[in-house]
Amino acid sequence: MLKSISPHLSADILHALRAMGHGDCIVICDTNFPADSVARHTTVGKPLPMGGTTAAQAADAVLSLLPLDTFVASPAECMAVVDAPDTKLDVQAEVQAVIDHYQTADTPLNPLERFAFYERAKNAYAVIVSGERRFYGCFIFMKGVIPPDAN
Amino acid sequence: MLKSISPHLSADILHALRAMGHGDCIVICDTNFPADSVARHTTVGKPLPMGGTTAAQAADAVLSLLPLDTFVASPAECMAVVDAPDTKLDVQAEVQAVIDHYQTADTPLNPLERFAFYERAKNAYAVIVSGERRFYGCFIFMKGVIPPDAN
Repeated sequence: MLKSISPHLSADILHALRAMGHGDCIVICDTNFPADSVARHTTVGKPLPMGGTTAAQAADAVLSLLPLDTFVASPAECMAVVDAPDTKLDVQAEVQAVIDHYQTADTPLNPLERFAFYERAKNAYAVIVSGERRFYGCFIFMKGVIPPDAN
Repeated sequence: MLKSISPHLSADILHALRAMGHGDCIVICDTNFPADSVARHTTVGKPLPMGGTTAAQAADAVLSLLPLDTFVASPAECMAVVDAPDTKLDVQAEVQAVIDHYQTADTPLNPLERFAFYERAKNAYAVIVSGERRFYGCFIFMKGVIPPDAN
């Protein structure tokens, strides 16, 4: 345990978030996501567990420390519902609310088709496996920058 | 870089601070300390560099996240000046000021004789090597606890 740090952020997850740089991406996935096979393609090379959290709780823990990128149009992405890509599920709305809490600029989740999501996830820095049981609890966040006069 | 986290805290140092539990100790040492030979006895097994910092800057970065133990009389120790153990040097006074900033209870640095310090340091969780050039910039902090209603 550390002062002011979410207990959901394990040592391995903290290491990953700090080691990531501008443009590196982190995946937060649900319990049905092929986390191990995808994570083996990532920089970390293995999934990072964050058990006992919903996707929104996992996103809240991550975004409490991780700045989202402001250099791109879509620093936050979700997996689109198969055959109904315009559908917005509760699990996605909850994560959108977390994003809105941390971002001053409008940052809507950009839906990615399922297999396109897998391909982008393979190029991420790491995969955090939340305890989310609901379908489509899968998200990708791109890390932004912190200016020298911050903190 | 992460929001609200000192840039002096590298991924490896963050990992160590988070992985430590109650009663585990972290060493902050100066540039003359036998960091590698001592650190090989520690849990991490290798020194963790925090270049470009004084001992006080390193202590400030660590104590911004690490709670000191309140279960023991001396959760903060320093290396006593050889042949003059009652001497308080500027480098020690600066770290004492950092401790006082973070602790509500009186937490004076407890001086340890040089070789006793080495032995205690070998039992630490990790050794952080600051950029401190002044002699006796060597300290040991014992990690405390964070109650469930915190954060």
